[in-house]
Amino acid sequence: MTGTPSPAALRALSDLLGPKGFTTDPDIMSPWLTDWRGKYRGAAAAMLSPADSDETAALVKICAEYGLPLVPQGGNSGMVGGATPDASGAQLLVSMRRMNRVREIDTGAQLAVVEAGVILENFHAAALAHGLRFPLTLGGKGSATIGGLVSTNAGGTQVLRHGTMRGLVAGVEAVLPDGSLFNGLAALKKDNRGYDLRQLFCGAEGTLGIVTAATLQLVPAATARRTAWVGIASPDAALQLLRRLDAALGRALEGFEIMPQSCIESVLRNIPQTRAPLDAKTPWHLLIELAGEDEEPLDEALRAGLAAALDAKLIDDAVVAQNERESEEFWRIRDSISEAERANGPALQHDISVPVDLMPAFIAENPHRLVAEFPGARAMSFGHLGDGNVHHHVKPPPDVDAVQWLAANGEAVSRLVYRHVLELGGSISAEHGIGQMKRDLLAELDSPARLAALRGIKAGLDPRGLFNPGKLIA
Amino acid sequence: MTGTPSPAALRALSDLLGPKGFTTDPDIMSPWLTDWRGKYRGAAAAMLSPADSDETAALVKICAEYGLPLVPQGGNSGMVGGATPDASGAQLLVSMRRMNRVREIDTGAQLAVVEAGVILENFHAAALAHGLRFPLTLGGKGSATIGGLVSTNAGGTQVLRHGTMRGLVAGVEAVLPDGSLFNGLAALKKDNRGYDLRQLFCGAEGTLGIVTAATLQLVPAATARRTAWVGIASPDAALQLLRRLDAALGRALEGFEIMPQSCIESVLRNIPQTRAPLDAKTPWHLLIELAGEDEEPLDEALRAGLAAALDAKLIDDAVVAQNERESEEFWRIRDSISEAERANGPALQHDISVPVDLMPAFIAENPHRLVAEFPGARAMSFGHLGDGNVHHHVKPPPDVDAVQWLAANGEAVSRLVYRHVLELGGSISAEHGIGQMKRDLLAELDSPARLAALRGIKAGLDPRGLFNPGKLIA
Repeated sequence: MTGTPSPAALRALSDLLGPKGFTTDPDIMSPWLTDWRGKYRGAAAAMLSPADSDETAALVKICAEYGLPLVPQGGNSGMVGGATPDASGAQLLVSMRRMNRVREIDTGAQLAVVEAGVILENFHAAALAHGLRFPLTLGGKGSATIGGLVSTNAGGTQVLRHGTMRGLVAGVEAVLPDGSLFNGLAALKKDNRGYDLRQLFCGAEGTLGIVTAATLQLVPAATARRTAWVGIASPDAALQLLRRLDAALGRALEGFEIMPQSCIESVLRNIPQTRAPLDAKTPWHLLIELAGEDEEPLDEALRAGLAAALDAKLIDDAVVAQNERESEEFWRIRDSISEAERANGPALQHDISVPVDLMPAFIAENPHRLVAEFPGARAMSFGHLGDGNVHHHVKPPPDVDAVQWLAANGEAVSRLVYRHVLELGGSISAEHGIGQMKRDLLAELDSPARLAALRGIKAGLDPRGLFNPGKLIA
Repeated sequence: MTGTPSPAALRALSDLLGPKGFTTDPDIMSPWLTDWRGKYRGAAAAMLSPADSDETAALVKICAEYGLPLVPQGGNSGMVGGATPDASGAQLLVSMRRMNRVREIDTGAQLAVVEAGVILENFHAAALAHGLRFPLTLGGKGSATIGGLVSTNAGGTQVLRHGTMRGLVAGVEAVLPDGSLFNGLAALKKDNRGYDLRQLFCGAEGTLGIVTAATLQLVPAATARRTAWVGIASPDAALQLLRRLDAALGRALEGFEIMPQSCIESVLRNIPQTRAPLDAKTPWHLLIELAGEDEEPLDEALRAGLAAALDAKLIDDAVVAQNERESEEFWRIRDSISEAERANGPALQHDISVPVDLMPAFIAENPHRLVAEFPGARAMSFGHLGDGNVHHHVKPPPDVDAVQWLAANGEAVSRLVYRHVLELGGSISAEHGIGQMKRDLLAELDSPARLAALRGIKAGLDPRGLFNPGKLIA
């Protein structure tokens, strides 16, 4: 019984939300109906922008009454079309961007209560003004909102030490599909009253309700960092180094990124004003970063760890950035890989994870599996080795029409990659979620037991399927 | 359509499980049909003891086919009757104790894969044999099993640093109510494929399926500890000290227990061979423990932290245990409080939590609220201040018949305590869970939004209500 909203339904919503919170103007809605990569384009009967949690609950009640499907949206910077409505024009877009207050920062407990529409960068600034840091950051920090980050269980570049959003969420406030407001904002270290709803909303992609606010864990503002560049023979040796540094440096280790030599060459070739940190052309490179409160002990620990690894012949060469500018130069190489690779022509990209220990085996073996079935195809992995999460690119053979080859083989190539990942107990979506992009893939490849459980949870909490229909669950 | 199992159903189960895995012998079943505190007594049509995950899945399939209700059980050392069947004799007791293998210990990744029936103490020993430690322990470690600890999201004495079971579970294998086996054992640091089933099984009390194994996080075996006893004026000052030490000592802080002077006096009076660590009779006492790999830095950090607190007049007095024997003596006082209090006569006990910052206010205010409604009633809190979790005892006025007073007022007193806890955003079950003991209390006091969500999840995953019926959800 879902369909285009009746005039009565739209009037009820308009009356509730007023001119600031309700629009059907195509010009205003347009930028929010396409995902930022331009892959998905949708339509909406109206865009609803509630001012607070009570308005959000009230609008959900109206939608429940009239049977109207909703698509919650934050900064619209997701990677899998999870916040883009379908093309029917029957769905309502619920923008959480007006709910942009940092309600509270408790410096003693190092906790903040933040509304769904707060932009990550603004929250960083608010925490810093209290001498604190929210230790999750990513490329889209200028647009991504707290509600979207919770709902997609966002990761980013500091997961090694601080975990994904799931590990930083101490409380959640959300409107459930029946329009009731669940207040789970109190940060309880111990709470055994049955199923943990807070955790369930992390990564639910708006399919179980709308997150209106979250209580987030803060850490002391890091005042020092130390960055090193390391040349190394293999991902296997890199994993050994990770284990050593992990044991020696404890929680200071904040970044551990791996890149093949071909990536570095591609960056040096395609990105102006970059230079190789090391002269040696080792098969693999690592960017390692430590963060803490004092520079000196960090520096000592890093140098001692690398010296021991050199002595043990675990690494070939290493250099520690002498200053902040050099650190930035190291990171610029890492962060330019995607751009540099684009200049080399099209590639299939996979956002995958496996248990950290199995990542070297995956990186070593997957190219062989690919070539056996797709002669000439070239696989390349780079990224967060410490998280068991790499960006895995597959490029067409050098001598064929790339676009044609990808159109003919792309799906089969990706299946081969994903099946390999699943063999190792891994995930076909490490960071970006499922959304509409991987919905059918999940239905095809995930275990029937897990799929049945996901569908059971969805049916139990949103029996009429009004929340973000067509996303996550087929 | 649940009822006493038919002979055909029992035959199918007996054929599947064989004589080691199936019994209806009352003598064998009897010890497992009463909870260990003797508060709940049940009956069972049979006790099923599967040897492995596949047998567990197969027995669940048979039960699903015949519509038979199941009660999963581990070490039978729970506190809320969560593993005791009802009195009907229609339910089947599923003992997981035969599944007692530690499948794997990965020293590099510091992870173990452990079957549900492994007893906690045995797992501690297995980890230690690899130079590692599983950092969760509690009084029932000689009987509590891994499956029960996962299903009750157990806490214990090291939560301050290492979290509850939820924080240590990196993977779960479970049989779902339809008899399918969910294999979520792979430890993935990043996995965004929708709802996190691993987390959902933590604290589900066997109502959503049977946990058959878990992947658990280990830490290096701690080789050193340092224990201090502190005299202090108030819970408020204790919280300030916690924040200071937390900032200065970081992850070394492993215990932070608070006790009122009356508790200490009760222990000294009732427990032989105990002596007060400090001469001063301050209103409150703290037991503080640090753990790490080297003794010297721990000792220095603890002494420096306490000296600074003395200088700031935040604490009245402090003593650091000189050796392991003194540490044990300090802990013996803390661990004897319950026993000593029992000697003082009956009391109502509450297992509650509030946000850590609000605990001093709760401890200070609750006695006043109680006395206003129940003149002469005496409230006393002690326990894990660092976790926002105390044991809150209420004793009858000194001049009345205690048993009679408790019978007449007990329920109303507990309601007052729980309502106060909920006002502060706290939990009516911090550690022990809901089971059958607090099932109706939860239904009465929790928010309608949260209750509806719990019921939705239960209905979605176990639509016929065959898994641990009558527990957790009314």
